[in-house]
This record gives sequence, C-alpha cells and structure tokens, in this order.
Amino acid sequence: MKNNLKIAIAGLGTVGGGAVKILLQNADMLAERAGRNLQIVAVSARNKAKARDFDLSGVTWVDSPLDLPSLDVDVIVELIGGADGIAKELVFAAIQAGKHVVTANKALIAKHGIELAELAEKHQVTIAYEAAVAGGIPIIKTIREGLAANKFSNIAGILNGTCNFILTSMQNEHKDFADALAEAQKIGYAEADPTFDIEGIDTAHKLAILTSLAYSCPLNTQNIHIEGITNITIRDINFADELGYAIKLLGISTYTENGILQRVHPAMISKNSTIGKVAGAYNGIIVEGSAVGRITIEGLGAGEGATASSVVGDIIDIARGAIYKPFAIPVSAIKNIGVAAIDNLVTSYYIRLSVVDKSGVLAAVTAIFADYDISLNSFLQNSHNPEEAVQVVITTHKTTESAMQKALKAIEALDSVIDKPNMIRIEDL
Amino acid sequence: MKNNLKIAIAGLGTVGGGAVKILLQNADMLAERAGRNLQIVAVSARNKAKARDFDLSGVTWVDSPLDLPSLDVDVIVELIGGADGIAKELVFAAIQAGKHVVTANKALIAKHGIELAELAEKHQVTIAYEAAVAGGIPIIKTIREGLAANKFSNIAGILNGTCNFILTSMQNEHKDFADALAEAQKIGYAEADPTFDIEGIDTAHKLAILTSLAYSCPLNTQNIHIEGITNITIRDINFADELGYAIKLLGISTYTENGILQRVHPAMISKNSTIGKVAGAYNGIIVEGSAVGRITIEGLGAGEGATASSVVGDIIDIARGAIYKPFAIPVSAIKNIGVAAIDNLVTSYYIRLSVVDKSGVLAAVTAIFADYDISLNSFLQNSHNPEEAVQVVITTHKTTESAMQKALKAIEALDSVIDKPNMIRIEDL
Repeated sequence: MKNNLKIAIAGLGTVGGGAVKILLQNADMLAERAGRNLQIVAVSARNKAKARDFDLSGVTWVDSPLDLPSLDVDVIVELIGGADGIAKELVFAAIQAGKHVVTANKALIAKHGIELAELAEKHQVTIAYEAAVAGGIPIIKTIREGLAANKFSNIAGILNGTCNFILTSMQNEHKDFADALAEAQKIGYAEADPTFDIEGIDTAHKLAILTSLAYSCPLNTQNIHIEGITNITIRDINFADELGYAIKLLGISTYTENGILQRVHPAMISKNSTIGKVAGAYNGIIVEGSAVGRITIEGLGAGEGATASSVVGDIIDIARGAIYKPFAIPVSAIKNIGVAAIDNLVTSYYIRLSVVDKSGVLAAVTAIFADYDISLNSFLQNSHNPEEAVQVVITTHKTTESAMQKALKAIEALDSVIDKPNMIRIEDL
Repeated sequence: MKNNLKIAIAGLGTVGGGAVKILLQNADMLAERAGRNLQIVAVSARNKAKARDFDLSGVTWVDSPLDLPSLDVDVIVELIGGADGIAKELVFAAIQAGKHVVTANKALIAKHGIELAELAEKHQVTIAYEAAVAGGIPIIKTIREGLAANKFSNIAGILNGTCNFILTSMQNEHKDFADALAEAQKIGYAEADPTFDIEGIDTAHKLAILTSLAYSCPLNTQNIHIEGITNITIRDINFADELGYAIKLLGISTYTENGILQRVHPAMISKNSTIGKVAGAYNGIIVEGSAVGRITIEGLGAGEGATASSVVGDIIDIARGAIYKPFAIPVSAIKNIGVAAIDNLVTSYYIRLSVVDKSGVLAAVTAIFADYDISLNSFLQNSHNPEEAVQVVITTHKTTESAMQKALKAIEALDSVIDKPNMIRIEDL
C-alpha cells in the first residue's frame, strides 16, 4: 500500500465534523477504496475547547488555519466558508505550498475558481469542490467525467435546500412565507440572516460553477438574472397547485445561439415531474447532453452527512491519484462564449393581478396582452370577497421575456390594477 | 499536449457506431477535456462493406477483432457482446497485451469481471464498463467514486429498458403483454428472442455488477432470486393502478445482517414516486449510503447516444490518466460476505386469485393468511361476470417471504381457486 494520505482540516463545523467522523469511523473501508490510509494529521477550528463527538487525540491542532500549509500534509480541506477573508487566504496559500485542496466553499469557487484552477495547474495540484454544489449529489463528477463525452445544452435544478424547504412547507402545510422561513430558521435549515439563500444568491453561485464547468467558459456571477423567493405568497402556491404546478427556486443555465443564459428565479413546474416532486432539503438537477439526452439526479443538498460524503469522495479521488483539472479543461482553453440576456428567453408565464373591478379591468388587460402578441392559455380568479381585491390569474402560452416585461409595465399602469403584478415563469421540466 | 490516445474499436453496431460518431464529431472538444487527442486507429466489424454514416478513412480495418491487441493501440473498446466467445477472448488478450479495455458487455463483466479485474491489475491497465449498466447513467462512477465515502446499504432500480418499455406501454396504452412485447420488437427495443430481457437475466447481470462494486464482494449471479415479467397481465397493471401503484421490473440488492440479498422481480411501487414515474426506455436507480442518504438517478438505459456517452466517458478517463480499480478496490481485498435467502425478505404483497365462488373461498383464504400471521391491508374484486372467474385482489401488510410462500401454497390447493395465485411484491421506493 502507498504512503498515508496526510490530511489537514480547517473548520470543524457541521461539514467538517461530518467529514472527520466518516474518516475515523470507516477508516479501513476507505483505505481499501483509496489504496492508502486517509490520515487526519492536523486540524484547525475556532473553538478547540468545544465538546465534539469524535476523538482527535494524536492530531495536531493549530490556532490559525494559515499555519496548515507549512505542515507536512498532502491535502488541505477548507471548510471555513466565505468568498474572501481567511478561507481565500488559506486556499491560495495551500496551493502555493503544493498542497491539494478540497473545499465545500461555493462562494469562493464562484468568485475565484478560475484563478485558483490556474494556480493549481501551475503547482501541479488540484482544487476539488464536489461539496460546493448540491451537497451529496456528485454533480461535479457527473458533468466533468461521467458525461464528459457530451456537448451540454442545458442544466436546470433545485440547488438550494433552504429555499426548497420553505417552498415545500408552504405547499404542503399551507404556511405563508414568513412562517415557513421562521420554521426553517428554528430547525437550522436557514440562517439568522437568510438573505444569501432566499434572495437566490447561493443558487447563483452554484449555477455559475456548473455553467463554467459544463460549457468551458469563465465564471460569471455578474450576468445571472436573479430573483429570490421573497415575493412568493401562499396565494401563488395555491393557484399553482390548482393549475397542476409546484413552485421551485430554479437555477437554469442554457446554451443558446446568443451565448449562455443563466437565470435564478422561482418557477412553476408540473407537480408530477421528477423535479416538481423534489421536496424539503433535497436538491434535484437535470443535465442535458448531446449524446446522453437527459439525466436527472436527486439527493440531499445539504447537511452533515451528505456534504461530508462529497468532501471525502474528493479526498479519495486525490488519494487514488485521480487528479482532475478543476474545470475539466486547462484554464488556458476556457473561452468566453458570450452572455444571452433574459430578454431573449421564451417561456410561458403565470401572472397574478389584484384588481378593484373585475369586469372593467379584464378587457383592458387582455387588450394589452394582445398588443404584445401574447396569447393566453388559462384564466382563474378567486371568489369575490367584497373586503378584498379580486385576484385574477392568467397563464400564457410561450412568449418572449421582453414582450412580457412590456406588457407587465402597461398592466401595472392601469388604474384598476392594485400593486405590482406577480409574475412567475412556467418551465417544462 | 500529451500523445494521442490510440483507440481500437471492435464492433460497429448501434453502440460502436455511436461511439465513433461522438469521437469524430466532437474531436476538438474531447481533446481539450481529455488533455490529448482521442484517435481511432483501428476497427473491426462483421461487415466492412455495410453503409455507415461516418467516415473511417485512414483507420486500419482488421478482419478479426483478435488481431487488435497486437496493434500499437492504448485502448481496446469491446462492443461485440456475449459472456463468452470472441468478446471474452478479445478482452483477455487485450489485457494480456497491456491494453486498457472499455466495454459495454454486462454479461461478460457479470461472469468474468473479477477475473478480468485481477488480470488488469497484474498488467497495470484497467477494464472500464460504465456502459454495461444503465446505459447513459454514470452509475458505476457514482458508486465507485462520487459516493466512495459511503458504506452502502441498498441499491434498487429499473435496469432494463426493454422491460420498462413493455410495462410502460401496458400501463399507459392498456396493451396486454404479448402486444406490448410485439411493439417493442417492432421498434427495435426488444430482440427477436427476448428471453434475456423479459426473464430478468439482463437485469440480474447488471445487479450482480452493482452488488460487487458497492459491497466489495464477489460477483454472484447464481444466488439472485430472479422472476421476469412474463406473468404480468393487463389485469395486474389495472389493479395496480387502482391501488396507486405502477409495476416495474426491479433489481434490488440489500446489505442485510445475513448477507447480501439480491433479487430481480416485478414490483408494485407508488406511481407517484420518482422510480414509479420512470417511463419507457429510461432507467432509474436508487443508491442508499451511510453518509449521503438516498441518491436517485434517472436517464436513458439504452440506445446509441446514451450508451456511447458512457463508452466515451470511460475513454476520456483513461486518456486523463484517471485509472480506477475496476471494482473500486484491489481484487485481493474483495471478501465473501454471505448470501441472504429471499425467505428472509420482509415486504408487502399483492395477491390476485381467480376463484369460482367468491363467498365460499374468501373465508378459506383469509383463514390461511391468519394461520401464517399475515395481516391484510386491502381487498378488491372485479364485478362478477358469470362467464369468467372472479378476480380477487388482496394486499398485505409487511410479512416474510417464507410465510407468504407457505400461505400461497395452501391457497393454491383450495378447490375453489383456479390457477396459481399471481403474487407481486410491493416495495416502498
């Protein structure tokens, strides 16, 4: 058997603790699979004194994670988090010291991934980040290796377990957004400041990584159209259900003739589809490739075990000597292939309007849709309660985003339309 | 860039032709991903004169595939098929000549895989067989690498596109088995002699491979409980639908305290579950691991593009120098972990009886179930047509297979029960 693979771990939170437990509890099995012992030689964590449910006696503790790269280790596992600050400093230093890096840090990879990949190439090491996207789902490996024969055309998925948990509990337990968020916070699925998750930023980071990996283009988080889930109301959830849809926060990256269109927004998808049924903290991803057609993968998108499974999977690859280019190809071969604006999107739409007077406004609204050549598919309204505005729901056939945006502006300007219309795209997944 | 990877392909049928097309049409993209050109240098096929929709000028043709190992090639791609005969001879010779092998041959791997892996280790090459199981789904890579941190407990899936196509058209188009089979044969989804597929043998081969890979145990096709789909009638399909189930041919491999239980049989699963909705020629697989929980993957299980995607994916891995042990660990570390008999299975059951006289027989039947401590869950019967036997359907709560088999024997012996009872297991997937 080869020499032990010497591992240093920075960060012993949920994922770090999970990775340590896997490495300690299944050491013999993992050694057989990896072809060598996977030995934790050093760790660094904010609070050394904290009670932990694993035994790290014999392992070197260092106060600063930045002391890890100078140790005699082969791999540094970065589980601190954050696009900049100490995590970034550690990862750059580790690679410069000739250490392989394994990380679950999507913000770091989305922001600095290409630069890190280039540095890793120079130092003949790798930076592996399976755990950064979709928790336990081996989506990086699937795109980079399993489906490497394919020219990719589309990637679409539920990439954020927090949002999916909130939307699922709105759908199944008829909670409104605030209650569902509070519940998610209570059980640890959402942070005290949930902005990153519920505004779609976390999904955008993951999407940018998948886009760059699949299409061999630079990371681009600037040109992602991002809408979060904060405008989704229980009314929309209920209307969606009546129409046969579930509402999910999707990240979608499409190769179009105008360039790559990246978008993150809530979407209505058939509640009977595979992705429409992905519930709670699960993630689900569809990958479409030229040879394979459509592959769908579903699994836990977060949590100790699932994310640690991906971290340790990356460590085993490194131990086996299966060292991949982080973005599948040399950084020098990554090409800018242009950015398609969301204006070009062609899809169907759900529009919910609050109106004061039903009969008058409907003629005006439908006239506006006709002006923009938008053909309507269905129409719903709730029973009139004199105390409340009437809710009118319209779904359209396929049209362009730009036509829809113009129509929505004109509709919003109508006197009888109260509030901004609520628009949710409908996707065939 | 490194030297070209020199490839020889034996067999230019559907999958071979598909692989050639991917390699030729996307040569530049694949070279970037692989880090070197993927060059087809030699081929062998039964009929050189056959019109083909790709251009192999400049490529060496050899009459016998057995001449390929002596050529200056790095990889031999075996797409001839069959557990023995020329395919086997070629693969052994290729490995002995120090060539890597890529194959889609599940029968060969299920029968000789361990022996081949051992020989490959000795000659420091690999034999890669992603295409042998579940077509375009990268299930081998997922188990061997992506989920390598996990102790596996269960693998369950639809692994045969032919059977799934037949069962789906019985379910959706209300065809009987013979018509659905004839349709599958007409459009090329089933062979003239469909035995291998419809009797569950093909599924058993694939299951044995996944079992050995996941649990690090020897290949064992002898101890798989196998039932095909030939006893599934349109009546069962319709009753299943009424009960909320779809009928699928499943391969299931479970790690139990008594050893590995491998079984292939039709099963009723919720028609709303992910696997229950896998339709037509698609395959779907659930993998359960200690850290990751449950991962589900769905994709095309057969066909030119999907299978060729896996073949070329394996070639790219080899070109990249990512050389894995074929069964994830050294052959010397593979351990016999015992075989659990199906008698130990605990599951729910669907039983359909044809009876002459309803009122008399029901008391007798329920008494027999009571004798064996089998508790009943639901009861259905079709409307009485005096010309036909009454169809009585019973579903049970969980019980053991051995109790159920004894009960079925006793029920079959009743005078008023016509024909052998039709039993289909109900699985929670």
